[in-house]
Amino acid sequence: MANIIVLGGDGFCGWPTSLGLSKAGYDVIIVDNLSRRKIDIELGCDSLTPIKPISTRIEKWKKITGKEIKYFNINVAVQYHKLLTLIKDINPKAVIHFAEQRAAPFSMKTPFCKRYTVDNNINATHNVLCAIADSGLDVHVVHLGTMGVYGYGTAGVAIPEGYLKVKVECEEGQKELDIMYPANAGSIYHMTKTLDALIFYYYNKNDGIRLTDLHQGVVWGTNTPETMLDEALINRFDYDGDYGTVLNRFLMQAVVGHPLTVHGTGGQTRAFIHIRDTVNCIKLAIEHPPEKGDRVNIFNQATETHKVRDLAKIVSGITGAEIRYYKNPRKEDAENELKVRNDKFLKLGLDPIVLSKGLMNDVVDITKKYRNRCDMSKIISTSLWSGKQEIDLKGANKPVL
Amino acid sequence: MANIIVLGGDGFCGWPTSLGLSKAGYDVIIVDNLSRRKIDIELGCDSLTPIKPISTRIEKWKKITGKEIKYFNINVAVQYHKLLTLIKDINPKAVIHFAEQRAAPFSMKTPFCKRYTVDNNINATHNVLCAIADSGLDVHVVHLGTMGVYGYGTAGVAIPEGYLKVKVECEEGQKELDIMYPANAGSIYHMTKTLDALIFYYYNKNDGIRLTDLHQGVVWGTNTPETMLDEALINRFDYDGDYGTVLNRFLMQAVVGHPLTVHGTGGQTRAFIHIRDTVNCIKLAIEHPPEKGDRVNIFNQATETHKVRDLAKIVSGITGAEIRYYKNPRKEDAENELKVRNDKFLKLGLDPIVLSKGLMNDVVDITKKYRNRCDMSKIISTSLWSGKQEIDLKGANKPVL
Repeated sequence: MANIIVLGGDGFCGWPTSLGLSKAGYDVIIVDNLSRRKIDIELGCDSLTPIKPISTRIEKWKKITGKEIKYFNINVAVQYHKLLTLIKDINPKAVIHFAEQRAAPFSMKTPFCKRYTVDNNINATHNVLCAIADSGLDVHVVHLGTMGVYGYGTAGVAIPEGYLKVKVECEEGQKELDIMYPANAGSIYHMTKTLDALIFYYYNKNDGIRLTDLHQGVVWGTNTPETMLDEALINRFDYDGDYGTVLNRFLMQAVVGHPLTVHGTGGQTRAFIHIRDTVNCIKLAIEHPPEKGDRVNIFNQATETHKVRDLAKIVSGITGAEIRYYKNPRKEDAENELKVRNDKFLKLGLDPIVLSKGLMNDVVDITKKYRNRCDMSKIISTSLWSGKQEIDLKGANKPVL
Repeated sequence: MANIIVLGGDGFCGWPTSLGLSKAGYDVIIVDNLSRRKIDIELGCDSLTPIKPISTRIEKWKKITGKEIKYFNINVAVQYHKLLTLIKDINPKAVIHFAEQRAAPFSMKTPFCKRYTVDNNINATHNVLCAIADSGLDVHVVHLGTMGVYGYGTAGVAIPEGYLKVKVECEEGQKELDIMYPANAGSIYHMTKTLDALIFYYYNKNDGIRLTDLHQGVVWGTNTPETMLDEALINRFDYDGDYGTVLNRFLMQAVVGHPLTVHGTGGQTRAFIHIRDTVNCIKLAIEHPPEKGDRVNIFNQATETHKVRDLAKIVSGITGAEIRYYKNPRKEDAENELKVRNDKFLKLGLDPIVLSKGLMNDVVDITKKYRNRCDMSKIISTSLWSGKQEIDLKGANKPVL
């Protein structure tokens, strides 16, 4: 079958995607500079699950399945000519682009983190597009974006898939335009994804590059059928205040006996997707590329929406964990509604794994198994959206609302 | 009076602006890494006018006017802490941000040029905003953007100043939104300015930074009353195919006996502004900053629109020069209409210097004086918007239409 390059293929979404594609018969080439593992070192943090080095992971996969995954350590944001040479050599059917710093709290932590996120994400995205144009090859790019580019709280309008029909007054009366949904980022990380969208728009228009942009919700879950084949294939599980995602954090907090950390009133509505559906969606996106000449194909990669406090209540209901309300470090509305269209993936046959399907127990089991690896001091989120805000680390375990 | 930092203050717009602000009584601090002069070296090109080193320029200005301009060689895209320290030390009333690679043809020349333009422009803009947020100071940022962010050919709609009122269908019926004008960049350079706009949007929203974004038309003219005080103060004049702007090129081509280089049919309509009005507009922008809490203040900094072939006809009419039509290297409509609202600067008292005011003779005089410095081989534009296009350099002086 065809070659697929997975940029960032050692990460939380990238690794299970790489295995899922390898299982499906694609020849997978992982490119990763291991930046996510190095950020763990800087944060003094580690995945709750004991992830193995990429070389061990790949060897084990080959031993179990007979399938080979190639790996190249390339910094996509910097090593342009290595990337270009690889693309020319491999001539992939698609490049899956996960090679970005992906945590909003980390992106707000310090000026260094802001600057690193912008520099890394924008140069990575631009290098990928520039290299494909430069190669002269017809390569489909599939990018992992975020629901966060839309902003939250678009009351009364279900968020469409990337584009918005609007009416404008002009000399000849009213004119209908089909525009990109106006961007409204809530963090530096989300901002980089709104910039990515304009880079895609341009390279699609000027160079005819076929592009799929996946606006993904908050991912939960950790393992897929492939990562469960052997402990050496296990996926990472982030529980810290920077990289941990909300539902996984709640489930893990319940297991280790930490109060569930709801920020603000918990009235924020977010879109969610299980990690297995991330893999399923990417497979569908590869199998259904846009035609040459089509505009950027945008999917909302999310399967359900929930208020954060409702998730806390569900987890508390199952586990008996206490819920605590912390000052919200983000600048956002205390309460918002969110409706999301995801018709396109449903039409392609996606059968969503929603919370009610019982996979929350998987997460509980994983966290029980590795609870001894948890550093309780890393649970509270210490990144602030405003330098003028104050956070009392000593008191951070006490509720403030 | 107040301190003003001019980032990119040695460049084509930056230098006359710095002098104009110094003349007006501001304490001007120029920051420039001299990248524009270095690009000239790489292109094997030079300003038609004999520009002096920045140190000589500043000494001469002090000698003539008694006014001191400070200069710091800082790469704004890279040397974040130097920039931050300077902003904290100076506590400026405003930072004028010209520190970007500003030529569309150069940005399309090679993958290196594309990548340099993105890396430099985005990191420069982000570092400026990040440093101001980091400093905790209330500094007004005035950015030199481009009319090109709007795209061309919005038939029937006069381009508003940055924002567009649209109607959207929602559950409760129709809803009016005031959105950022949808971006539609025509080159990598223009794309970076559409990215800048989203960075401004974010830092204005999250950190309350007061921002003015000037969407400038194509600049023509070269000198201002200040740069004319002494030959050592002369402004740069670019005539080459990468950095030269269309009207200045036509006037200069007529003087040196080169046919006027119209690309395509010349039916492209562009917005124009004289360099003296660039300086006037920036002064007005500094004097009328947005209030704390206001959204990004966007002005269209352009005073008239013309089709390129009409400009060629005007210049040919004055000088007798021959007009030749070359293959258009850009991807754009052969013909477009363009109406531009510029009410905001007019309301602030701008008295536009339009073509009919006779300043074209100034440009002719300058080019006559320095015609012996012209390298005829640098006149043709060799940058291509598509790698698949072909350009016959030997035949480049022959008309292709």
